[in-house]
Amino acid sequence: VARLPVVVTRTGSGVRTANASRLVRELHTAGPLTRSELAARSGLNRSTVGGIVWELAAAGVVVESASAAPSGSGRPSHVVAFAEGRVWALAAELSPAAVTVARVEPGGHIVAKVRDERRRGGTDPAADAELIGRLSAEWGGELGTMVGAAVAVHGIVRRADGLVRLAPNLGWRDVAFGELLHAALGVEVRVANEADLGALAEHARGAALGADEVVYVSGDTGVGAGVLAGGRLLGGRSGYAGEVGHMVVDPGGRRCHCGGRGCWETEIGASALARRAGRRRVGVAAVVAAARAGDRTAIEAVGETGRWLGRGAASLVNVFDPELVVFGGALRELFVAAEATVRAELRRSALAASAADTELRPAALGGDSALLGAGELALEEFLADPAGVGAGSAQTVP
Amino acid sequence: VARLPVVVTRTGSGVRTANASRLVRELHTAGPLTRSELAARSGLNRSTVGGIVWELAAAGVVVESASAAPSGSGRPSHVVAFAEGRVWALAAELSPAAVTVARVEPGGHIVAKVRDERRRGGTDPAADAELIGRLSAEWGGELGTMVGAAVAVHGIVRRADGLVRLAPNLGWRDVAFGELLHAALGVEVRVANEADLGALAEHARGAALGADEVVYVSGDTGVGAGVLAGGRLLGGRSGYAGEVGHMVVDPGGRRCHCGGRGCWETEIGASALARRAGRRRVGVAAVVAAARAGDRTAIEAVGETGRWLGRGAASLVNVFDPELVVFGGALRELFVAAEATVRAELRRSALAASAADTELRPAALGGDSALLGAGELALEEFLADPAGVGAGSAQTVP
Repeated sequence: VARLPVVVTRTGSGVRTANASRLVRELHTAGPLTRSELAARSGLNRSTVGGIVWELAAAGVVVESASAAPSGSGRPSHVVAFAEGRVWALAAELSPAAVTVARVEPGGHIVAKVRDERRRGGTDPAADAELIGRLSAEWGGELGTMVGAAVAVHGIVRRADGLVRLAPNLGWRDVAFGELLHAALGVEVRVANEADLGALAEHARGAALGADEVVYVSGDTGVGAGVLAGGRLLGGRSGYAGEVGHMVVDPGGRRCHCGGRGCWETEIGASALARRAGRRRVGVAAVVAAARAGDRTAIEAVGETGRWLGRGAASLVNVFDPELVVFGGALRELFVAAEATVRAELRRSALAASAADTELRPAALGGDSALLGAGELALEEFLADPAGVGAGSAQTVP
Repeated sequence: VARLPVVVTRTGSGVRTANASRLVRELHTAGPLTRSELAARSGLNRSTVGGIVWELAAAGVVVESASAAPSGSGRPSHVVAFAEGRVWALAAELSPAAVTVARVEPGGHIVAKVRDERRRGGTDPAADAELIGRLSAEWGGELGTMVGAAVAVHGIVRRADGLVRLAPNLGWRDVAFGELLHAALGVEVRVANEADLGALAEHARGAALGADEVVYVSGDTGVGAGVLAGGRLLGGRSGYAGEVGHMVVDPGGRRCHCGGRGCWETEIGASALARRAGRRRVGVAAVVAAARAGDRTAIEAVGETGRWLGRGAASLVNVFDPELVVFGGALRELFVAAEATVRAELRRSALAASAADTELRPAALGGDSALLGAGELALEEFLADPAGVGAGSAQTVP
């Protein structure tokens, strides 16, 4: 069997780390694999794979078990998988509606999740950090090692240092939330935009798997996008790219909290849907459910909001020529409910050349896209140096 | 003096070609350089540089001359430059108003240019190809070797094969213009979108030099953009990305020839300006001149069109978070005339975080951005293998 040549430029432990990283990334993306599959996918030879698996197993990071389906040769085929409960990352999402905190294990598994609905007006950064810190401490008392932490924020986040520049729906401006949480957790915390992280997760293991040109539009009260071009997340100069909720779609339209007028967000956000449905309480699911039940006002509200969704999506298709537009957050529910309308409006408003091959899809990770994206970010250091993390902290496992 | 390590993965002539390419790209970008400067910039040692320069000089591609300013050591410092009239590329631009053809030499010099204004309704692809072929034949009779040809089209161009999918202002749909021109020229022809090529040229040697996050918006009757993200041109799935002229900016607005309604193009294109100025003849320069001369209707037309320019630019700033927005084509004139209005509208409509650091600039290459971009594309093969082209065709030089 021909093997891919392995080009290594580092020596000694650098090579070992790189090879170990390669293997755990395969497990992280594809799930449990046999040693042969690991060798084939990674391009490493079997003895190298065997050595790394042995090391990772000794550190408790992976486990090997005889496969239920023996290979044709009669020899048992050992399956390598992450040890459950051993390595985990803390992922959090801060939205206007709730603080959600999850324990995410390699492979993209959410093994525990707590959602704390916000009381009215309760969006104090210190309180959010304290809540996350408390949950992390509880989980930290259990088995395993926390290898990283990341937070998805519904707002504009500076890429260089994770400063939350503006999160109007949280009422935040220039909040160094990462530092705040670092103080509570004692580990470094990465902070990123919710839509960017959602796009990463949908690309890694969701609706955008295998696609390199993707616009992931996510929304609730606010609307933003994570855009993948050539498989890489667009950041712009400071990481603020993708603020599609503030494309001006109607110059004579409504005032937006950003100071502008007629932003897309004012037409497709959860508040717009509630307004059209004549409801004081903002909640996309409730209006969609009422429309399904035959409520005329709700049906019209969903239709009109869907038209605006399609119209703005058409602009994005013209600007990005994506393979795929994925709708996440509450826009997922809106898209599913108004799909025919959205598609019709897209056909009407987008250039035929670009729209012809563009697929529209709901997010596949349900409401967990951003949380799983934060998990990806928080696991990154472990994935880059799995033996280091495993070996260095093995003594913390009872 | 410490030299940068040169990593070479190819052997024999592959290395020589790569090294020669490296040197001519330095000359192409920076202009004439001494051997020492070439060595320092390329990371190659002096004897390698000397050998390559000798070879390229023997092929007539470069010339060496004693510098007017001798170096401090007293030794004469030889300056290496492209030989004028030796290597050239054919660059053309097809706009609704004219066919422009240029002879472009390495270093980005337009040494000859012919602009053929279109008669009313005269946008027959075959006629355009014939005109370009005729000019190329005339120039081909002169000194030098044509090393490539490229065409900038004001329309949507498929990246894979250069098919003009739609150029509404030319009245073209699915025109394989590259093949048509290939038949007339006998050499391969690259075809690309006008705004994409303008962006490349402004990045290589214009207003966007050194910037990696750039939105270059170009317009006349139609409006499009070339977007650089991380220094690379956004293409999207098929190369249609950047059709910002068809962002819907006013759903109740005017019908667009694309079939949509309220596209940005219908508010900032040359026809919109003419309409507001009460003119039947479309021409941005004339309205801008009239406004400068104090014509009230023209002043108002420029102001209102400038407001729409700023409004749409705000959406692009929110979507891309660029370092720089560059206005090209006729939008250059409009931007210069309405600059204060455009800036005010941008401040009003864009997110402060993104807009704060975004610069707005007119294109620096005047009306030649797209033509020079086509030149870049047409010279690419020569720049990748300069000795091959030079040596193989040296005998065609008298």
